[in-house]
Amino acid sequence: MKTELSIVKIGGNVIENAAELNNFLELFSNLSSPKILVHGGGKKATEIGQKLGVPSKMVGGRRITDAESLDVALMVYAGLVNKKIVASLQSMNCNAIGLSGADANLIRAYKRPVTNINFGLVGDISGVDSKTLKNLLDIELVPVFCALTHNNDGQMLNTNADTIAAELAIALSEHYRVTLYYCFEKQGVLSDKDDEQSVIPKIDWNLYQELIKKSIISDGMLPKMENCFRSLKSKVDRVCIGNTSMFQSGPGIYTILTL
Amino acid sequence: MKTELSIVKIGGNVIENAAELNNFLELFSNLSSPKILVHGGGKKATEIGQKLGVPSKMVGGRRITDAESLDVALMVYAGLVNKKIVASLQSMNCNAIGLSGADANLIRAYKRPVTNINFGLVGDISGVDSKTLKNLLDIELVPVFCALTHNNDGQMLNTNADTIAAELAIALSEHYRVTLYYCFEKQGVLSDKDDEQSVIPKIDWNLYQELIKKSIISDGMLPKMENCFRSLKSKVDRVCIGNTSMFQSGPGIYTILTL
Repeated sequence: MKTELSIVKIGGNVIENAAELNNFLELFSNLSSPKILVHGGGKKATEIGQKLGVPSKMVGGRRITDAESLDVALMVYAGLVNKKIVASLQSMNCNAIGLSGADANLIRAYKRPVTNINFGLVGDISGVDSKTLKNLLDIELVPVFCALTHNNDGQMLNTNADTIAAELAIALSEHYRVTLYYCFEKQGVLSDKDDEQSVIPKIDWNLYQELIKKSIISDGMLPKMENCFRSLKSKVDRVCIGNTSMFQSGPGIYTILTL
Repeated sequence: MKTELSIVKIGGNVIENAAELNNFLELFSNLSSPKILVHGGGKKATEIGQKLGVPSKMVGGRRITDAESLDVALMVYAGLVNKKIVASLQSMNCNAIGLSGADANLIRAYKRPVTNINFGLVGDISGVDSKTLKNLLDIELVPVFCALTHNNDGQMLNTNADTIAAELAIALSEHYRVTLYYCFEKQGVLSDKDDEQSVIPKIDWNLYQELIKKSIISDGMLPKMENCFRSLKSKVDRVCIGNTSMFQSGPGIYTILTL
């Protein structure tokens, strides 16, 4: 029987609110180990970028990462946000270790090929070193990943945090029974986007196809759900989507995805 | 017989020049493992701080770290500088892992007590977890430390990079035969500060006392030398002071300190 491993991804909404973040980190630190945290960056990078005269660059509604924006991402995600989370977790007796994909060569990526859009310094993941990651988990460390990878040629790359969480979950399923948690602002996947109470408790592959057809799942939820089902098809045991209340004790409201 | 371990501290002068840094990292990556790198931050923090409207604060010629300056340090030292060094080392097949003292609770510190000066969020080191550090070295990782620690109560703290290197060297002397290298802009300790060629090849405790009396060692060199002799008195095997040419093959010019 494989050991259980929790991989939790938190987004900007949790990170931007100090009280909310602290509340989440308390819940996370109480989860049984082994566990891994993956965090996005939130609006702080945009704010710092503006102050530094590096405005966000968008082409066709998609964010572009040039060299200057990448420096801002390194500063905010790998520096400010990551180390504050690590220090907070340490104060809660959770032995966190902050990481980017370059550290210990844990997540290798390649620059996304230019098609109709050149995304710039954005990395698509080519490999995860699950052995070294397992070594870190074996000495009871709690990896905390920011959403940055590298190309093995000296270049850091911006990578979507949802995708990092999914790729870590897939790679570690070789060694663990993995539950992947996507923690965002809503209580789960909603059947009516205007009704916060309309959480769908369970979505399997067939229902997922149906929800896409009915446009109940659309826009930003689509790539998130793609990551979820790709994980499930690659031996990840369970995927849960909800807000921080997923980690409170007792029965909670959230969405569980299955094949 | 204990395994040899090299701990190398580089300062701002190496970090600020991209070609010099790259040259150093090539030499460092060729050093036999196990090894550890400790880096300062250089002027980049001042530059970024100014752009963000957080000017350096000095009282009586000493730098003060307030909450805003600490955020800049987190961004520049733990983010920008640390991750670029890690990515570069990875491209040279050196399996670097970027760390602050908060990561894996490796370096614990306490806020420096207020005397005539309140240094703000500056940490004096209270302990190093040499066991976990040895675990990382045992799985062939190369720790790369920025000059930040934490207080175990959620607060990151600014800590002098020379002192971090010395404390790591002292703590790891329990497990390794440690050589501590302080790499700075000069070829070694100079007998005449205006003559770059006047490197003193060997300084023992008696000569050190003499050099202080003659004011040949003064100002910024004093705390550096204090760290060196404190290390030697705490079982560190060897301390070397010089510039990056210390790591070139063949006989080099630098200063070796002994008791």
